[in-house]
Amino acid sequence: LARKAKELARISRKIERFITKYLSTSSAKGVVVGLSGGLDSSVVMKLAVNALGPEKVLGLIMPAHPTPEQDVRDAVELAKSNGIEYKVIDISPIVDMYIQKIPENVRAAGNLAARVRMNILYYYAALNDYIVAGTSDKSERLIGFFTKFGDGAADILPIAELYKTEVRELASYLRIPAAITEKKSSPRLWTGHLAEEEIGFSYDDLDPMLQLLVDKKKSEKIVAEKLGVPLSEVKKAKNMIDRSAHKRKATPMAEL
Amino acid sequence: LARKAKELARISRKIERFITKYLSTSSAKGVVVGLSGGLDSSVVMKLAVNALGPEKVLGLIMPAHPTPEQDVRDAVELAKSNGIEYKVIDISPIVDMYIQKIPENVRAAGNLAARVRMNILYYYAALNDYIVAGTSDKSERLIGFFTKFGDGAADILPIAELYKTEVRELASYLRIPAAITEKKSSPRLWTGHLAEEEIGFSYDDLDPMLQLLVDKKKSEKIVAEKLGVPLSEVKKAKNMIDRSAHKRKATPMAEL
Repeated sequence: LARKAKELARISRKIERFITKYLSTSSAKGVVVGLSGGLDSSVVMKLAVNALGPEKVLGLIMPAHPTPEQDVRDAVELAKSNGIEYKVIDISPIVDMYIQKIPENVRAAGNLAARVRMNILYYYAALNDYIVAGTSDKSERLIGFFTKFGDGAADILPIAELYKTEVRELASYLRIPAAITEKKSSPRLWTGHLAEEEIGFSYDDLDPMLQLLVDKKKSEKIVAEKLGVPLSEVKKAKNMIDRSAHKRKATPMAEL
Repeated sequence: LARKAKELARISRKIERFITKYLSTSSAKGVVVGLSGGLDSSVVMKLAVNALGPEKVLGLIMPAHPTPEQDVRDAVELAKSNGIEYKVIDISPIVDMYIQKIPENVRAAGNLAARVRMNILYYYAALNDYIVAGTSDKSERLIGFFTKFGDGAADILPIAELYKTEVRELASYLRIPAAITEKKSSPRLWTGHLAEEEIGFSYDDLDPMLQLLVDKKKSEKIVAEKLGVPLSEVKKAKNMIDRSAHKRKATPMAEL
């Protein structure tokens, strides 16, 4: 346990230095981060505050129709207790205005909301000469569980090399309140949307598979044996990784 | 001249094959492209039609406040004459709804409009199981003259390896009407916005500098000598390339 705390301290310092260094090499004055009241964005905000001080961190809380009121309260509470400037911007009138112009579709509207948030983060970044800190974690990135050019779009990705289960440990180390760290993961793209339900795995089951498949480059068969899970489950995870490759890669250009 | 026509034919075929191939390896059914009535988007649409047939190409024409009426007419005319499905969606009520929620700023609003268009392109892509074809050319990309996660965001970039002056030649070869090929370049992010004015170079002057600096990796001094232009001008172009590097690279992640 002492060793784990030491490792978490090392990781925090490393990410904080990354944020400080990027800000000083770009000419930006601070960082803007979207606060959902969930795990990832709370951790990114906390690391940014540790790195830069609260006066250089702006938190935008952007609820839409499917956002539970409790998420907004948790995000506001966290912003206040960390002493950062924050704004609550209800994006549902904006999403509704799009829907007046384009055909209604629940799933497409979920991704649209994620992109509307990105638009507003970049708008405030431009107003303040700030950069946008993204909140994607490694589990989400690897299985493509994010909106391309939505929550996946940012100037820096501080926790993109940490699995969801590691982010949860880091959050406790950083003393993020349990109301947030113990909340079930959800992008809240529609009412009742839960990450683990949509993915079909719990992160506790998924992360060890991803680690072996991606970091250790083990075959599906070896992973199934090592973890004692059915091969079909490992194949399912591998398929998610492969099918979402285009979301992690640079956009392909026609060569001449 | 005959050699130039042959070269343009080769380039067209190469880009058309790229589009066809990407579509068949992804499981998408067609391509959606934003039509501005300008050069780049017209060429991308035409190449997509040549590659896939008009029934697999959807054109979205998305004027905002600063868009001249003539641009809309040119885009509609081109869509009709190519037999593709198209929609005209006035995005100004959407942009205005954002501005009700966030502080007004002309320049930030310009980038916002580019991102709103991206959002709508991806929305229609999701509805139809299409991919988004981006319209960035090499000149714009190299100097960063595009909106990050706006017009720069797409699933494929068919003309991103062609300089603006080459796109213009290709457009004539593809029989895009002169009303479009001879129009002054403009992202139309605000009224009176002209590309060459904002950039501070004409593309005829800029492209040879970019070619020598980037493709031939020549020093600023050599480029100035070769082209007979002041060193300060070459340094200015080089500075644009360097400062926009973050817009072309993958988002930096904190390593652990």
